Amino acid sequence: VTLIGRDAQRMAEMNRLRENRAALPGLALPSAIAISGDIHAVADADLVILAVPAQATREMLPGLQGRVGIGIPVVLTAKGFEQQTALRLSEVVSEFLPQASLAVLSGPSFASDVGRGLPTAVTLASRKLPIAERIARMLAHPAFRLYASDDMIGVEMGGALKNVLAIACGIVEGRGLGASARAALITRGFAELQRFAVAHGARSETLHGLSGLGDLILTCSSPQSRNFAFGMALGAGRSPMGGKLSEGRFTAQAVVEMASGKAIEMPICAAVAAIIDGEMSVDQAIEALMTRPLRPEAG
Amino acid sequence: VTLIGRDAQRMAEMNRLRENRAALPGLALPSAIAISGDIHAVADADLVILAVPAQATREMLPGLQGRVGIGIPVVLTAKGFEQQTALRLSEVVSEFLPQASLAVLSGPSFASDVGRGLPTAVTLASRKLPIAERIARMLAHPAFRLYASDDMIGVEMGGALKNVLAIACGIVEGRGLGASARAALITRGFAELQRFAVAHGARSETLHGLSGLGDLILTCSSPQSRNFAFGMALGAGRSPMGGKLSEGRFTAQAVVEMASGKAIEMPICAAVAAIIDGEMSVDQAIEALMTRPLRPEAG
Repeated sequence: VTLIGRDAQRMAEMNRLRENRAALPGLALPSAIAISGDIHAVADADLVILAVPAQATREMLPGLQGRVGIGIPVVLTAKGFEQQTALRLSEVVSEFLPQASLAVLSGPSFASDVGRGLPTAVTLASRKLPIAERIARMLAHPAFRLYASDDMIGVEMGGALKNVLAIACGIVEGRGLGASARAALITRGFAELQRFAVAHGARSETLHGLSGLGDLILTCSSPQSRNFAFGMALGAGRSPMGGKLSEGRFTAQAVVEMASGKAIEMPICAAVAAIIDGEMSVDQAIEALMTRPLRPEAG
Repeated sequence: VTLIGRDAQRMAEMNRLRENRAALPGLALPSAIAISGDIHAVADADLVILAVPAQATREMLPGLQGRVGIGIPVVLTAKGFEQQTALRLSEVVSEFLPQASLAVLSGPSFASDVGRGLPTAVTLASRKLPIAERIARMLAHPAFRLYASDDMIGVEMGGALKNVLAIACGIVEGRGLGASARAALITRGFAELQRFAVAHGARSETLHGLSGLGDLILTCSSPQSRNFAFGMALGAGRSPMGGKLSEGRFTAQAVVEMASGKAIEMPICAAVAAIIDGEMSVDQAIEALMTRPLRPEAG
């Protein structure tokens, strides 16, 4: 296994310390992992895991072109739509790597939990189930279980939307509104996620699975989630730190535009987008969400 | 509003302190609330909220017989099945109060959040929607929103099952398995809850609402939940404190029996019941849950 990073200096330091001090402090990187700052190393890979932020994906793809062989699995782990194009990330990647076996890995899995060997279960989706099953077997570990799926759209939609909803939950938390309000918001948010994703071709059972509901629950309830932490800062009126790593921040606007094209009601995502764009204050948004007319729940 | 308790001495103390020091310390009870230890006071009520533990419900019902008038709303807030009979609580209550307008209130609402006036949203279900809507209007407050429903079975099933799943999540937390494992467990648990509840007449959209998914998420993620705390103690190998207040403890066995009668697969609830009955150790149960064969997620 070779860990390749874009910043050669940082990778050299990581190799010297044998630790990713910024992201996973205190966790020794196994000696079997080679560390490199050179993208050329990808040419030998039997499988490539792409773990760069959603909005940085396109710019690093030219470096992979011609280096990833035919049928080599390329597994995406970032979540969100590309801000400029509203494309799913797998659509962006397949423009550059049409010969690869694209897959998406998603599910409730904090890096620190996985790194410490705690039990984790995720979804691995590709367009064809046999390919997903083969990749799942390549990555499987007793403490890291992968469920194969052929609903790549469902997995990507769930992953993108949950980041926006995590910002909303962080806002509610940062504003001190309590765990009960947050649970209600996750429930309404899941309905919103489903409406949007099914209208865009996702399967409902995927959204009910680990990559949908599972990841939504995890991301919406812990400051370990960058999107939740970003929302918390907004809710508390602080200037958000590390906002560049909040993928939901960039996804919110794309989601709202895509939803309006299909007339899908997305009040929570719309409120998040309006806050990020400075069109609405946090209090106005909360007021708008809390005073929506009482309707039967199915709506 | 009159708060009636079974323990006259405790109610007198609560009246002196104007505070429920055991359950809601630090929250002053509004002066408009009368406090009584005398069940006769119920005879004047326009609406009765029954807030005793599930397993204590039957024994206090004779005291209400003949005191609750025709069509008076009686709102149940306990969750679970009666252990001896596997009846839903509304079934137990209607044996004694057939003339009342029975309703069930359920949803993500920690007493401390509601007491502090934080925004909360819950489901209020009765057999007829107009009755549910009337009761919802009687109890509504800007910070306490009630969504009316006519799916009383769905609300009761969701409330009962989530308490058992909260014990499972507490066990995972107490064992130190991390937030990712817990999120995966909630996801699989929600599938289990749906299978069971739909097979017993609940509507899927109710289970997706505040009283189902919403309450499940809240109860499964905070030690404020008595069932979660009970599970945490089990997972940590401590002797559980206050186990009598864990309604899921008594519901687990009933759920497993009801499920086996209809051949519904309930691995998580079965593991909780086996641990409580001492038939399986916590580690055996976790091992069994984690090594279940990898199946497509829809299963």
